[in-house]
Amino acid sequence: MSRVAVTGVGMTRFGKSNDSLKTLLLKASRQALIDAGRPKVDAIIVGNFMGGPLAQQEILGSILVTELGLGHIPSMKTEGACASGGIAFRQAYQLLKAGAYKTVLVVGGEKMTHIQTNHVISAVNHAMDNSSMESKTGLTFPGYFGVVANRYMYEYGATKSHLAMVAFKNRNYARQNPLSQFQAATSLEEILSARMITDPLGLFDCSPISDGAAAVVVQNVAREGVEVIASGQASGTPIMQEVDDLTRIPATEEAAKQAYSQAAMEPNDVDVLELHDCFSMTEIIAIEELGFFERGTGFEAVEKGLTNHGGDIPVNTSGGLLSKGHPIGATGIAQIVQIVEQLRGTAPNQVEHARVGMAQNLGGTGAYSLVHLFKKEGA
Amino acid sequence: MSRVAVTGVGMTRFGKSNDSLKTLLLKASRQALIDAGRPKVDAIIVGNFMGGPLAQQEILGSILVTELGLGHIPSMKTEGACASGGIAFRQAYQLLKAGAYKTVLVVGGEKMTHIQTNHVISAVNHAMDNSSMESKTGLTFPGYFGVVANRYMYEYGATKSHLAMVAFKNRNYARQNPLSQFQAATSLEEILSARMITDPLGLFDCSPISDGAAAVVVQNVAREGVEVIASGQASGTPIMQEVDDLTRIPATEEAAKQAYSQAAMEPNDVDVLELHDCFSMTEIIAIEELGFFERGTGFEAVEKGLTNHGGDIPVNTSGGLLSKGHPIGATGIAQIVQIVEQLRGTAPNQVEHARVGMAQNLGGTGAYSLVHLFKKEGA
Repeated sequence: MSRVAVTGVGMTRFGKSNDSLKTLLLKASRQALIDAGRPKVDAIIVGNFMGGPLAQQEILGSILVTELGLGHIPSMKTEGACASGGIAFRQAYQLLKAGAYKTVLVVGGEKMTHIQTNHVISAVNHAMDNSSMESKTGLTFPGYFGVVANRYMYEYGATKSHLAMVAFKNRNYARQNPLSQFQAATSLEEILSARMITDPLGLFDCSPISDGAAAVVVQNVAREGVEVIASGQASGTPIMQEVDDLTRIPATEEAAKQAYSQAAMEPNDVDVLELHDCFSMTEIIAIEELGFFERGTGFEAVEKGLTNHGGDIPVNTSGGLLSKGHPIGATGIAQIVQIVEQLRGTAPNQVEHARVGMAQNLGGTGAYSLVHLFKKEGA
Repeated sequence: MSRVAVTGVGMTRFGKSNDSLKTLLLKASRQALIDAGRPKVDAIIVGNFMGGPLAQQEILGSILVTELGLGHIPSMKTEGACASGGIAFRQAYQLLKAGAYKTVLVVGGEKMTHIQTNHVISAVNHAMDNSSMESKTGLTFPGYFGVVANRYMYEYGATKSHLAMVAFKNRNYARQNPLSQFQAATSLEEILSARMITDPLGLFDCSPISDGAAAVVVQNVAREGVEVIASGQASGTPIMQEVDDLTRIPATEEAAKQAYSQAAMEPNDVDVLELHDCFSMTEIIAIEELGFFERGTGFEAVEKGLTNHGGDIPVNTSGGLLSKGHPIGATGIAQIVQIVEQLRGTAPNQVEHARVGMAQNLGGTGAYSLVHLFKKEGA
């Protein structure tokens, strides 16, 4: 089994862009290839969710192969809703680990802001099981996670203020990240009094509609680079009525268990964490499922500042989905870009002495979860 | 490196179905799992192209994991237009070869007949590069391959009769396949006088709009099963204006080269072939690119009956895309189902003494091509 490392990263600014999906993917890809020293690429894997309905564009793999002038190398797209990027990265990792390729370009992207919001919401809902009654009666993602937040607050005594603290932290990080979608200062008061989306989730508790792309070059031939030391992936039910406990996302717990086991590590070994905060509530659940805090205590950890820079485990120093933005197919790769930058020592909101980083990417309401662990070069 | 074999196959009837995409995928999956003796499954890979725009359904991997009661095993969808199924199979093969999993369920499907034809055509066109001028001016897939057919006839002296011979052969095979979409007898005269789609391609020269699913169980732990002995994949330009020679599909030649090299075989070693006859013209080009006949002579081979049962290389004994049907994501897997049945000795239009089989799956106008080789158990 080979040593697999990320040797190049690239990312467009997230937010509203005039670029097409193809152009966004190309920009991030070219940056990553230059950053990696322009290696010979053996395959391209693209993470994307809604290229068909929103951009009228599939076959993204072969479009990139052609446009980048890479001859006839194999390529494909992977889809797992908001985990499409993480899934693409995992395929590259597994195939490189096995020696099937030497260098893989992994790129994720989405183009969302050019379409009417109701069409975007319809397309995002393709990430539910549409044969289920809840989907037919109009459940949306904010609707789902609003219910989750109400249940969590009821079970454990958290309040809307705890949700706001997550959004506030991530916005403050995003202000230092030149590629993030939202860079304006805010306050807990503004967050708490913002327009309600689905009670108790207000505007700042929900990740935005975004354009953007992110790319990484992954290799098994380089001695340098940020090493990938574990890859966990699990599935879970996409149907609300089948969920045993709404305050839990078992696929995340399972993916983390796999990753810790592969790396022979535990939460305490992780120095910096990017996780899937599609909603503020989801961040609190994720820090529990990933083993950083006991079940039902994540909100207290947030209140104590333990997920801040300087705390036990700095979370979403990129700004997270909430404020960096959430161009869906890009998200899983963008998280890895931030972790790689952290372990290189060049990240926005750099965590000092960061040696081990984790990226966790969620798809659907809990349909997919991926956990990857990374180690600083030479660490 | 492990021995990888197909140990179970399943397939719904192709054509117009009242089942949802989810139900079609489940039916084929359950058949394949039963056929394989209900092994413990480690991962699911789904090939699908238009689940979003046509069925409003993505996250097919996790839906199947949940519905089949497989706990939290990893899953995903792969997309490469009409090669989505072949790409899904290749991922399973590569990961099993490397020992990453022991048993993978690969299932492909599409639901197309419930939607107005113009919407289907729009969605199929997501398999072109929509930033290109040709796409903006209204090029469709029948339009593309109509131009190809005209050029081929001009260059090599083929006629519409040669195209009709391909369609006639495949219909005759489909009549023996209980799962095929079209089972009515036809004649060369009927084919030649049928409604024109894009000159010179008439109705019988074009694959239909279909619903359906196909599944295979692939394992690296079984001593039995039909062995997968090679997997080739290549990309090509999706833009007509960038194609050097319209009578060629270089990705197919390259994928075949890889497969022959891996298996240390040549065309002469192959006893039975399923290839991607999205149009009758495409079959003639494919038998040339795969090395069975010299460039520009495929149409003569068809005329001589060399691609018939009993000829040098029986092609599309399932009925092919033209008459078995073409539910896009299912096609790459359905081809493999037919080859496995041929090598088991249980296929419709069984080829006697078939030892080695090939399946070739195309995506877009030449954006992706995959070639897999299979060997009879014990051969």
